[in-house]
Amino acid sequence: MTDRRHMRHALALARRGLGNVWPNPAVGCVLLRDGAVVGRGWTQPGGRPHAEVMALAQAGEAARGATAYVTLEPCAHHGKTPPCAEALVRAGIARVVTALTDPDPRVAGRGHAILRAAGIDVTEGICEAEARAVQRGFLSRIQRGRPMLTLKLGASFDGRIATASGESQWITGAEARRHVHALRLGHDAVMVGGETARADRPGLNVRGFGPVRQPVRIVVSSRPLPDLPDEGPEHGPLWQLAGRPEDVMAELGVRGLTRVLCEGGGVLAASLLRAGLVDQLIGYSAGVVLGGDGRAGIGALGLGRLADAPRFRLAETRRIGPDVLHRWLRDDAVER
Amino acid sequence: MTDRRHMRHALALARRGLGNVWPNPAVGCVLLRDGAVVGRGWTQPGGRPHAEVMALAQAGEAARGATAYVTLEPCAHHGKTPPCAEALVRAGIARVVTALTDPDPRVAGRGHAILRAAGIDVTEGICEAEARAVQRGFLSRIQRGRPMLTLKLGASFDGRIATASGESQWITGAEARRHVHALRLGHDAVMVGGETARADRPGLNVRGFGPVRQPVRIVVSSRPLPDLPDEGPEHGPLWQLAGRPEDVMAELGVRGLTRVLCEGGGVLAASLLRAGLVDQLIGYSAGVVLGGDGRAGIGALGLGRLADAPRFRLAETRRIGPDVLHRWLRDDAVER
Repeated sequence: MTDRRHMRHALALARRGLGNVWPNPAVGCVLLRDGAVVGRGWTQPGGRPHAEVMALAQAGEAARGATAYVTLEPCAHHGKTPPCAEALVRAGIARVVTALTDPDPRVAGRGHAILRAAGIDVTEGICEAEARAVQRGFLSRIQRGRPMLTLKLGASFDGRIATASGESQWITGAEARRHVHALRLGHDAVMVGGETARADRPGLNVRGFGPVRQPVRIVVSSRPLPDLPDEGPEHGPLWQLAGRPEDVMAELGVRGLTRVLCEGGGVLAASLLRAGLVDQLIGYSAGVVLGGDGRAGIGALGLGRLADAPRFRLAETRRIGPDVLHRWLRDDAVER
Repeated sequence: MTDRRHMRHALALARRGLGNVWPNPAVGCVLLRDGAVVGRGWTQPGGRPHAEVMALAQAGEAARGATAYVTLEPCAHHGKTPPCAEALVRAGIARVVTALTDPDPRVAGRGHAILRAAGIDVTEGICEAEARAVQRGFLSRIQRGRPMLTLKLGASFDGRIATASGESQWITGAEARRHVHALRLGHDAVMVGGETARADRPGLNVRGFGPVRQPVRIVVSSRPLPDLPDEGPEHGPLWQLAGRPEDVMAELGVRGLTRVLCEGGGVLAASLLRAGLVDQLIGYSAGVVLGGDGRAGIGALGLGRLADAPRFRLAETRRIGPDVLHRWLRDDAVER
């Protein structure tokens, strides 16, 4: 029970890194000695320092004899810095509790082995399901070779994203629109199709949250792009890709992305759905009716039978300002 | 505080009559003496006996000196039975608490006046907002000359009610489908367009709730109807109407309906929305995506600007089985 409580604390710290630490996983770490928290850490922007290093630095000498709660198996490989497993040993940590084994082939149990070889008491698998949910994007990149993909749709009661004449500002309220910015903040990249990029020239950036690491802007199109803002403090790098949806997603995996948010348009959304690449759906539904002549949010799927339609299971629904937020997960998503 | 608590009890009783008592209002009554409930009543199927008569019969001699909580001003007119206001006087009730004045011109304050003239202590307006919500349909019939209208839409994540080929069974889960039957039970009538009647030959009845007063079946069409089941224990009366939506709704008001549920199709739904006749929207959203080539649940509205689109405010949202239920009210609906 106590282990779970401290692991949840570490998981809350881990979530701070989501969207901010690719190609690394977002990890949280809590150091506890004699019932008191002596150090807290989470993966820093860009992926370094790691959570354990930050927590150990904070604890200093107090780390000796402490228990470390880490949301992912400590790394075992020498990269830019020495492995965290060795850092925990050196600091005199007495016990390590982890939620998940790191599936990265460079770790894959070797972090736990280093700790045990040094005489540290290791408990694994605490809050594993929650940790898997936090780590969904990283696990997807390692295990499926592509980032996890969220598809967002802000629409009218009847699923329309604009009137027949194209008017769409605003269907949903300010609260839902702010939530979209929080969503972008929690993803490594924001992706749109070429038609949307040309028609709307969207900012694809995070606004209203102070200085942040801006998400990569991805435009899927083989045609020339319009003039979009340069990369800088307000806008992330701009990547243009084209090709089959599977290949685009695989390429994004190779480039290190773990969490990608697709914001349309309908043609791109439909191609991703048809290819079975969407892991999470987020809908904002407004109390306005636009009618069958309004613009559809998702393009043609060419479904033969209802049984062939992509199905998702409900993760949450709640009021958001004047609108309804609903979030759905693909049954075969990495999170369980 | 205590008055509100007992009125809520009476309102819960009143709700039992919804869909079951037209052309009468659904009223609840609780009789309290020395802190104990000595009688409970609600409007019976078809509208008679009234709630007060049922509660007084249950209380018998215990009604003498009791307080009566009634969700609507007791009636003052001699109809098939003597007025309830007089029955309360005759039974020796000492105090009457009501939630709402009856806007029926045959009552409209005269019920309260009869009670006061007999020396009974009368308190009005307790839980008025809740009572107005329960009474929305009756108030609509009296004040606007038409029943209140609920529009129901069970659809995919992207607002589609069938695949391109017309397959629609089942998009939503068993819990949502059962909720639709409960919804029919709470409405006086179920209405569809001619196209839906001809294509689906829908039952438009309540199933799975035991023997009930079946709702009136309304088909809005000027063309011949298909063979639909005869009226009987399983099916309510079948009414065919045609004409402008405003005129159809006014005719339903004249015939005494207070609560009508429209279940489609898209053309009828759009014409009702365009005419501003929809008071309540109920959506069931499933975690399935059917795409832009799927069938739209609501027909073309021909909106010029987004500002012209009918807007509703969110009343509730919650999970229902695997789906999301969301309920919205028109801002100018009778309920406030």
